[in-house]
Amino acid sequence: MAVYKAPIKDIQFVLNEVIDVSKLAKLPGYEDATPDTIHAIVEEAAKLCENVLFPLNRTGDEEGCHYENGVVRTPKGFKEAYKQFAEGGWTGITCDPEYGGQGLPATVGFALQEMFTASNQAFAMYPGLSHGAYEALSRHGSDELKKRYLPKLADGTWSGTMCLTEPHCGTDLGMLRTKAEPQADGSYSLSGTKIFISAGEHDLTENIVHLVLARLPDAPGGTKGISLFIVPKFLPKADGSVGERNGIRCGAIEHKMGIKANATCVMNLDGATGWLVGEANKGMTAMFVMMNAARLGVGMQGLGIAETSYQSAVAYARDRLQGRSLTGPKNAGGPADPIIVHPDVRRMLMIQKSFTEGARALALWVGMLIDEAHSHPDAATREAADDLIQMLTPIIKAYFTDMGSECANLAVQTWGGHGFIRENGVEQFVRDARITQLYEGTNGIQALDLVGRKLPMKGGRAAQRLLGEISGFIAQHKGNEKMKEFVEPLEKAMGRVQDSALFLMQNAMKNPDEAGGAASDLLRLMALTAMAYMWNRIVVASHKGLEAANDNAFYEAKIATARFFMARVLPQTVSLNHQIKAGASTLMALPAEAF
Amino acid sequence: MAVYKAPIKDIQFVLNEVIDVSKLAKLPGYEDATPDTIHAIVEEAAKLCENVLFPLNRTGDEEGCHYENGVVRTPKGFKEAYKQFAEGGWTGITCDPEYGGQGLPATVGFALQEMFTASNQAFAMYPGLSHGAYEALSRHGSDELKKRYLPKLADGTWSGTMCLTEPHCGTDLGMLRTKAEPQADGSYSLSGTKIFISAGEHDLTENIVHLVLARLPDAPGGTKGISLFIVPKFLPKADGSVGERNGIRCGAIEHKMGIKANATCVMNLDGATGWLVGEANKGMTAMFVMMNAARLGVGMQGLGIAETSYQSAVAYARDRLQGRSLTGPKNAGGPADPIIVHPDVRRMLMIQKSFTEGARALALWVGMLIDEAHSHPDAATREAADDLIQMLTPIIKAYFTDMGSECANLAVQTWGGHGFIRENGVEQFVRDARITQLYEGTNGIQALDLVGRKLPMKGGRAAQRLLGEISGFIAQHKGNEKMKEFVEPLEKAMGRVQDSALFLMQNAMKNPDEAGGAASDLLRLMALTAMAYMWNRIVVASHKGLEAANDNAFYEAKIATARFFMARVLPQTVSLNHQIKAGASTLMALPAEAF
Repeated sequence: MAVYKAPIKDIQFVLNEVIDVSKLAKLPGYEDATPDTIHAIVEEAAKLCENVLFPLNRTGDEEGCHYENGVVRTPKGFKEAYKQFAEGGWTGITCDPEYGGQGLPATVGFALQEMFTASNQAFAMYPGLSHGAYEALSRHGSDELKKRYLPKLADGTWSGTMCLTEPHCGTDLGMLRTKAEPQADGSYSLSGTKIFISAGEHDLTENIVHLVLARLPDAPGGTKGISLFIVPKFLPKADGSVGERNGIRCGAIEHKMGIKANATCVMNLDGATGWLVGEANKGMTAMFVMMNAARLGVGMQGLGIAETSYQSAVAYARDRLQGRSLTGPKNAGGPADPIIVHPDVRRMLMIQKSFTEGARALALWVGMLIDEAHSHPDAATREAADDLIQMLTPIIKAYFTDMGSECANLAVQTWGGHGFIRENGVEQFVRDARITQLYEGTNGIQALDLVGRKLPMKGGRAAQRLLGEISGFIAQHKGNEKMKEFVEPLEKAMGRVQDSALFLMQNAMKNPDEAGGAASDLLRLMALTAMAYMWNRIVVASHKGLEAANDNAFYEAKIATARFFMARVLPQTVSLNHQIKAGASTLMALPAEAF
Repeated sequence: MAVYKAPIKDIQFVLNEVIDVSKLAKLPGYEDATPDTIHAIVEEAAKLCENVLFPLNRTGDEEGCHYENGVVRTPKGFKEAYKQFAEGGWTGITCDPEYGGQGLPATVGFALQEMFTASNQAFAMYPGLSHGAYEALSRHGSDELKKRYLPKLADGTWSGTMCLTEPHCGTDLGMLRTKAEPQADGSYSLSGTKIFISAGEHDLTENIVHLVLARLPDAPGGTKGISLFIVPKFLPKADGSVGERNGIRCGAIEHKMGIKANATCVMNLDGATGWLVGEANKGMTAMFVMMNAARLGVGMQGLGIAETSYQSAVAYARDRLQGRSLTGPKNAGGPADPIIVHPDVRRMLMIQKSFTEGARALALWVGMLIDEAHSHPDAATREAADDLIQMLTPIIKAYFTDMGSECANLAVQTWGGHGFIRENGVEQFVRDARITQLYEGTNGIQALDLVGRKLPMKGGRAAQRLLGEISGFIAQHKGNEKMKEFVEPLEKAMGRVQDSALFLMQNAMKNPDEAGGAASDLLRLMALTAMAYMWNRIVVASHKGLEAANDNAFYEAKIATARFFMARVLPQTVSLNHQIKAGASTLMALPAEAF
């Protein structure tokens, strides 16, 4: 069976030894977020994940959500689990204390997000979407809206959604048709159909707060005519209790490949009452701020699923006896050796291990950057942090989710035929992970965001910031003989990024298809380079750990895993560099009818 | 919705212009297999696939198989479709006319297998397994067994299975426990439990013929003590009709990720009557002959699913309007451009197209080699053909199925969020394809077969045969200026194969883990090189086609697709070469408890 134990030790290692989480408590507003407090929170969350959420993962998938006459019932146990989740304060962990949140930094939120998703992606999406709605409202809503909705979202009494997609438009939101008519009382009447609305209807909370993109009657066409509205399922009364049912209803739920325990809803708005969030016709900007946070959240889902997949693969590889080691029996007394002795099984496990551990470090570093960008007293530090976040957001979304799917598939492959059987719980990871490459912008869209928006941003300065960060590290550690085997491949990979970027600069101006054609490969090349950078930082931390002569096996395993990454994963950058420089002409040569 | 049209034109192109199928009718026994006859058969099969099998693919997946008290019911429509399939003679297409088959060459069988799987993998497995049983019996069974069973398998009245796996052993069949006790009448009494038996029980045929691996009482341990038995569901009477129910019963069917319309059965043998097939204790050899054919068949499943996936992705990419081309609107009158204008969508389609077309050529070439190995009057030609088949079998099984899954995933990715919805039928391809990387030996086992068995075979002569084939082509076409852009990358890729093989020769003797650690990467490297070779042959054929000034668009598309393959797929060989030469030490460095 699939297994999951929260990787507390590794999270602590990254927080304390790789990214130095003690810096957090020095940021204004986060004084209480000391390493000890964070440790205690992570341990508490781990218990919830292991004992409550993970046991519901398989049953939730098998049962799925139920739809009848506009009402959605979540699978058995979800309601009780959600109650426990909300009562534990987990819905408001990073929310503002002014609205009843715990006020903890994003770094902590990231660590928890990984664990929540790893134990139960479908469940974790319910509070995850609420948090997205909370963020959008807290940044763009009026004080009145904030006072009315944020406390309910923070304490989990109400949940939230994002209503963007319509049947004829997903990526291209400029085409959206949902209408918002101004009413005499300052509210709006919304009509239209939204699809793919995660958590659009369910039985976990007393109210559901929908954030809806729609057009005002006089709005310009395209994305410049889109506004953001808040449309609650029940209209709140002045005392905060729920009142009249609003005209937004679930018309159906989708039958999906995975995340079956999360209701994906068709939402029909029929004269639903809503209120404008932020300025008229600036809905896309408001939504995009939220979207960037959501994209990092989806990246964390990729990591979470990779972690459960990895653990489930390891458990089976240690347990399953089949064949003998090529170098002689390792379990001579038994009928066969555990399959973990076979190099090809090792290859699959090491790919997963080197991804999850490197990605965790990268993610928590970005969490720290978010906290710095938000709270650091120095403006230049805030800007530098924000530049790095901007650059790394599409990379984390696309690379982490591609690898989440790859790790889930490697877990199935490790399990052999038994991995294909639903009861064993491993194939579910493949089905659940698959959506993460699609939603919040497909991974192709992430690549275009990287190449078309982030690389040219501020005249290329954000990109330089990332390369500068890595170059700084290389310069600092190059002379260190012990680091040579790690710094050298990092430097070569960075050279390939620069070489590829130069090719694009020389060609994409003449032909924008060159940027589009290179985008996915360049994203992967940059992701691998960012991972190589984090593995270097992990090695530096491990050398320090070894000097303290404390838990040598742990640090030696880190260094060995870093070596694997350099030897067997990072070389992909060579081919990616070749492919990018081969240009886009072979992609675009065929007329559409020749396919 | 997912779509499928049998790729008749491309199959004809490969048969007639790339591999010269007219050679078949010159082989003794295949005189009737003229290009015209083959063309007619392919067209007839295409109708069946498009009109009967494909429409049942989605409904079969959604309904699945039903199990009650040992009885299995296939989904609605399967029984009628099977009847039509058998009545059309498709169950016996390559079977011996002596037993009622059509006696057609393997090349034709391969072309049909692709189409059957592409339209309905779960359905195609029922006759596919029968054919496996037919082959094993026809090669190893006594005349009496052959006379009794082969006509029923050839005309589809009865179906067949392969019963190998047991709960504690799949790959490592040496551990199998099913017992066969000799009886006074020359039959055997078999007892044990087999799992993962595809088509083990169903309602399509009046009888099911199980080929079962079991141990005789005095058998040596390990794989040298395994014998092959035939165990029918109903014991045949002397007149060929079905008699008494035999003691082999389906105890349960598995709940699986995919191929839900094919019953995967737990089979309990409780004193079941069986007869020995071939020699006692030589069951593994008999099974292995069959297994190699089955592995090529599974490879064809990978190609089939890749083809349907590709077609479904193209249909959506042409139809879905979203965004504008980076080089200016291509559908200025419409609300947006079809997504096929976007380079990253092109990238996904071209990966699929360059795989399916190249793989089809490679597969049909191997089909032709099988016919030559079987029927060519010259012994040296037969041996050469057999060497190539041996080398290419694990490559086709593993690479085609890995790419089947990749193409299915690319189709989902092209469809975006809509690809995740079951009704659209695309995500099913991902779930169905997933099993092909696992069964008939996981792809890791294929890689070990290649490195551990096929490369050293005959002192490396089989491997030299494949490299010689490619070198011969290179020498022949190197001077041709028009071929330069294709021959050069092929030559470089072959250089990387040789360099990697040299590394293994120098290191794997000292440490066998080096072979195991390099296996999967080397298989992929050789697969890409074999594909590059086939794309070269396709280009040669296309140049000829263009000289005849006939259907230029078709041939130009082939050449453009070959260019894509050389520019954007084949460069992977560079990284693979690096990874192999990095050695296995980083895979094996960690103790098992460090995972």
